[in-house]
Amino acid sequence: MTTDATDTKVTDEAVTSLDGTADPRLRELLTGLIRHLHAFARETRLTQEEWERAIGFLTATGQMCTDTRQEFILLSDVLGLSMLVETIHGNSADRAPGATESTVLGPFHMTESPARELGADIDLVGGGEPCVVSGRVLSRDGTPLPGGVIDVWQADGNGFYDVQQPEVQPPGNGRGLFTADAEGRFWFRTCVPSPYPIPTDGPVGDLLRATARHPYRPAHIHFIAKAAAHVPVTTHIFVAGSDYLDSDAVFAVKPGLVQDFTETDDLSLARKFGVPNPFRHARFDLVLERS
Amino acid sequence: MTTDATDTKVTDEAVTSLDGTADPRLRELLTGLIRHLHAFARETRLTQEEWERAIGFLTATGQMCTDTRQEFILLSDVLGLSMLVETIHGNSADRAPGATESTVLGPFHMTESPARELGADIDLVGGGEPCVVSGRVLSRDGTPLPGGVIDVWQADGNGFYDVQQPEVQPPGNGRGLFTADAEGRFWFRTCVPSPYPIPTDGPVGDLLRATARHPYRPAHIHFIAKAAAHVPVTTHIFVAGSDYLDSDAVFAVKPGLVQDFTETDDLSLARKFGVPNPFRHARFDLVLERS
Repeated sequence: MTTDATDTKVTDEAVTSLDGTADPRLRELLTGLIRHLHAFARETRLTQEEWERAIGFLTATGQMCTDTRQEFILLSDVLGLSMLVETIHGNSADRAPGATESTVLGPFHMTESPARELGADIDLVGGGEPCVVSGRVLSRDGTPLPGGVIDVWQADGNGFYDVQQPEVQPPGNGRGLFTADAEGRFWFRTCVPSPYPIPTDGPVGDLLRATARHPYRPAHIHFIAKAAAHVPVTTHIFVAGSDYLDSDAVFAVKPGLVQDFTETDDLSLARKFGVPNPFRHARFDLVLERS
Repeated sequence: MTTDATDTKVTDEAVTSLDGTADPRLRELLTGLIRHLHAFARETRLTQEEWERAIGFLTATGQMCTDTRQEFILLSDVLGLSMLVETIHGNSADRAPGATESTVLGPFHMTESPARELGADIDLVGGGEPCVVSGRVLSRDGTPLPGGVIDVWQADGNGFYDVQQPEVQPPGNGRGLFTADAEGRFWFRTCVPSPYPIPTDGPVGDLLRATARHPYRPAHIHFIAKAAAHVPVTTHIFVAGSDYLDSDAVFAVKPGLVQDFTETDDLSLARKFGVPNPFRHARFDLVLERS
């Protein structure tokens, strides 16, 4: 079976149909989409039955989405697309040496993080191992950024976000919006995060099973850091030594984002932070580029 | 801004993650999908905001789907993908000279066509211009295929399918499942179909508006023809002279599928078919390849 001339005819017709598009960027994106989608179908000789299964898969993915579940983001994540888009535009060690590297947003930044005082405990349930996270918001030249805002969200000690367990966790558990102090410092209490599986009860779970992939992410805390006159960064810190650091289901680990959550035995520091001694302590700075 | 090495790193990681896939065809398809999806994002330097809009578009497309509305098939249709898949595998004038060419299934073959006697009228409402469709189901060597089955569906004289207007059209309006007689002949009554717009009240309609494309399809009747020991064909006949033959919103027109709906003034023929004289008459054969 050979691919006949008609195959490129319909591709050309579809691309030409975009000629009247007012927005040149939309036209560029749709042209690229059509060319790659058609090349994919031609190269794999996609069958009608496979096309029907793909239509069914995409439909089920859309219908799985709710206010608290974003199955298309999960799909993009497990295909590596989310991390690629972040890599193309976000900070990397190559592009902005010294600035905090970016990584994926993920599907759980869907509710507003509640504003909290520095030092507050975002573990409202108290289920996990207590720890302190502290550091500074800095400009790349080392200047502290007072008033820098950090938006933090994480799963609880059992690996679930508040929105996944509305009957167990109060809204805002594991979330906080903090403003750095006059020296750019931030600190808050939480529990040490656990590795957790991304949700597997939908089409993306079926895809992972069909490809014999595990659904786990290494333990991490999400951050978005912002400050006036600086480029915001969306990132995680990963817990050093966590399982799955080398096989994150969504390909989001960068070595520079792995942080020690150090076992700390220091009674005066424990008192200062309001945690039992000894405690785990992650210390790192969020370093932003000037915009 | 240059694309750094990390961009291909995540692509390689995503492809490598498929190593354990038991089904080699699934692995081939997903590998091709990841490579093209990532190449598309890299070439266009897809931004986070554009990615978010795409996630929102796909989610809305999935949520528009119901038992009687398949927005992902519409999307595939307007991007030319449906026609491409049909072209890769279906009959074409190049590949099977003399056999009836195939074209897209479309999104409206979602309910079973009711079995009807030869000569029955599938226009249950009587809104359009009456016509007769007749011909034979043949093997490519010209042998008639008695017992060949043709599944027919079309929009009414106003351009709507029964499933789009459950309060106006009875179920099965414009649909019929016919069995060819001992000489392989089929004939039925209907109304001359009209050009019609594909549904534009969903995300695909937004896409057409954003690209200044009209949503119309030229007038056509859908067929699936089957016979023992032959390859089924999914096709349309298009009404010669219809508007939009050169700009079908779903790229499905092939010149060999355009048929005359001839104005016929023949009282005895009109009586035989049970239609008022004069009437419109489309005559063509459905020619199948041996399997």
